[in-house]
Amino acid sequence: MKALFISADGFEDTELLVPYYRLKEAGVDVVVSSMNRMTITGEHGYQVAVDKTLEEVDPGDYALLVLPGGKAPGSVRKEPKALAIARSFFAGSKPVAAICHGPQILASAGLLKGRHITCYATVGNEVKEAGALYEDKEVVVDGSLVTSRQPSDLPAFLREMMKQVGGMKAK
Amino acid sequence: MKALFISADGFEDTELLVPYYRLKEAGVDVVVSSMNRMTITGEHGYQVAVDKTLEEVDPGDYALLVLPGGKAPGSVRKEPKALAIARSFFAGSKPVAAICHGPQILASAGLLKGRHITCYATVGNEVKEAGALYEDKEVVVDGSLVTSRQPSDLPAFLREMMKQVGGMKAK
Repeated sequence: MKALFISADGFEDTELLVPYYRLKEAGVDVVVSSMNRMTITGEHGYQVAVDKTLEEVDPGDYALLVLPGGKAPGSVRKEPKALAIARSFFAGSKPVAAICHGPQILASAGLLKGRHITCYATVGNEVKEAGALYEDKEVVVDGSLVTSRQPSDLPAFLREMMKQVGGMKAK
Repeated sequence: MKALFISADGFEDTELLVPYYRLKEAGVDVVVSSMNRMTITGEHGYQVAVDKTLEEVDPGDYALLVLPGGKAPGSVRKEPKALAIARSFFAGSKPVAAICHGPQILASAGLLKGRHITCYATVGNEVKEAGALYEDKEVVVDGSLVTSRQPSDLPAFLREMMKQVGGMKAK
């Protein structure tokens, strides 16, 4: 099984690295994608190697999409290919796990209308304007969409993300 | 079930936070202990609240001891109470998971003689002098002692740490 992370410079370090190591622990192949095939640097200075550019990604290769937060989603959401990848996951009802500012990418892709989600508090109004049914909870699961607010929600976020992965394995 | 982390300023952020969130995901209560009841700050700037001073810790309350790396173990190893806590875990054959510079604490406590372990490369000579049988592997398990070298080993470290926790639950 393969999981795709889409991020960029300015990611919230733990929101990328904690799910990244968690999936690798479970034997999932993790691929990090960004605009350029370089390393990306988090708000706290962690560097993560980029495995594929967005253009190189075939979303059909992946069972799970993870969208970490921080400042990165603000640049990722401007990339048409990133939005196309997110739409492909939704079209196939494949799991998407987005935390903090990550749901901004889904808002730009027009994927939040009528969906129950949470996100970082300051992003709440924006996702509501995009049609989301916003809830202030540590994790919200709406079908195959898992969202959380912030790093302190990571335990609940991991738990629900791994349920989605477990469900995929059982299929 | 409760897990005890012992660390201090200068911890390697992911080596503390990744196991911390992983255990919370599994429903384990995590208690962070240090010299003072303040927050401790990692090398990358993450702040973690200290739940108990070393003096307040009764090791009998905990099923697992986690020793993250970074610069923190260099100060923790000078604390007699930290060494006494580690000895209590070994005396009870309770799981101890140490990564990177974390095994320095076990070396100072005189607990490594004849034990198979790994650790951060630059700490290798020191643990050998303390009697350890050092191996350069992503994770080494010797009974209830789990050790790893560095952040990139976290997936294997988590896997073996969680096996120890699972074993405790089954008892």
